[in-house]
Amino acid sequence: MHRLILLRHGQSVWNAEDRFTGWTDVGLTDRGIAETHKAADLLKAAGIDVDIAFTSVLSRAIETLHLVLRDMDRLWLPVHKHWRLNERHYGALQGLNKAETAERHGAEQVFQWRRSWDVPPPPIEPDDPRSAVADRRYAGLAKANLPRGESLKDTTERVVPFWRDEIAPALRLGARVLVSAHGNSLRGLVKHLDDVADHDIPLFEIPTSRPLVYELGADLTPLRRYFLGEGSTVEEINWPKREGANPGSSAAA
Amino acid sequence: MHRLILLRHGQSVWNAEDRFTGWTDVGLTDRGIAETHKAADLLKAAGIDVDIAFTSVLSRAIETLHLVLRDMDRLWLPVHKHWRLNERHYGALQGLNKAETAERHGAEQVFQWRRSWDVPPPPIEPDDPRSAVADRRYAGLAKANLPRGESLKDTTERVVPFWRDEIAPALRLGARVLVSAHGNSLRGLVKHLDDVADHDIPLFEIPTSRPLVYELGADLTPLRRYFLGEGSTVEEINWPKREGANPGSSAAA
Repeated sequence: MHRLILLRHGQSVWNAEDRFTGWTDVGLTDRGIAETHKAADLLKAAGIDVDIAFTSVLSRAIETLHLVLRDMDRLWLPVHKHWRLNERHYGALQGLNKAETAERHGAEQVFQWRRSWDVPPPPIEPDDPRSAVADRRYAGLAKANLPRGESLKDTTERVVPFWRDEIAPALRLGARVLVSAHGNSLRGLVKHLDDVADHDIPLFEIPTSRPLVYELGADLTPLRRYFLGEGSTVEEINWPKREGANPGSSAAA
Repeated sequence: MHRLILLRHGQSVWNAEDRFTGWTDVGLTDRGIAETHKAADLLKAAGIDVDIAFTSVLSRAIETLHLVLRDMDRLWLPVHKHWRLNERHYGALQGLNKAETAERHGAEQVFQWRRSWDVPPPPIEPDDPRSAVADRRYAGLAKANLPRGESLKDTTERVVPFWRDEIAPALRLGARVLVSAHGNSLRGLVKHLDDVADHDIPLFEIPTSRPLVYELGADLTPLRRYFLGEGSTVEEINWPKREGANPGSSAAA
């Protein structure tokens, strides 16, 4: 049995301000920091240990991981950071307040941007100071390949290669894996692992600070998945059978 | 011109208690944490940027690096952790108070253990609870290869392969490298880089929180080395010419 733990970063400054964040590199709030200690407590109480960790190149996920590993006395573990685990790129919406955006563009349009499967936000211009073009952390990427605004589908499609190339191989080698990432990059992973239908996955809420544990079979097919801790989310997620729901998708392969 | 920055971790709990620390995994004190911010301020004021970082598998060096990178807005940089950058293993002395040990064994003996080149401390027994044998972070090492107590010479000899295999190649590829490590593993690096004489290197003090900058030529020969910030250490270190002082040593190769 393989074990994978997915962790959404603690509350960020822009979560608290209800702004579209995406690739903007904002830090954790005090509440977000407190949440990381809660996450570590949940993992320790469940007797869950880790051998390797993956995270995005955004500070809020890296900091969350660091604080959790520190509490677990596991700072020495290898940590791999990659942009493919970044939050969904929110295009020209990045930095805007969600309520104000709804007033301007209508609640229905904002709901489409936030909770559709394949509707991208308005793209960010390359010369926009909010663009990632000038950010050195993406210097290894061709400018033409830098996202200018992603739908959840786009995010999922760039997360899955990282699953195949990095996370799944580590699991197959027997490592217990912790992934510290973001609401939408984790949705992409969950969709891929559980073959969730396109219209269901945007509505799946991953709470901050509650580790989502996947127990996987030898072929990395999910056997069981559950959140640690108590809260408003279901303790055991039973995805409806989705066979044939997403033709072309092939579960955890 | 290549640039290498060596950074000794901020004050640890056992630095403050004047105890032999070695591989014991103690955290930073509040002063040690404050020192990391000072180190980051010095690097930023000097306009020094970094592309990749290396550290030991001991929390005080990892935490120092994390806090410095956070202040520099560089949390996203790749960080490689390796036991070869660990502090010198202090054998059976680990945990003992330095003054008490001097009372028991004599000041001369303790000076030998602390400031000689090739005198190892009394070895730790494998079944000693302070031994690294049961520590999962060293599970990849054969038990027979785990240090039981190192002289500075032993520490230098296990640091140099890491220089050759990891740090020097990164520098040659053009990366600006930050190494967050420990008093004695950094002494080992300095000795190797500058071909310092055996009897000089144990007395070379690397202060906490003051980045030591090396400017290196194309062949990684040191051109210049200096501490950032003001303090009791010399601003520019001029090692006496040591040609032939350490036969068999070959500078930065």
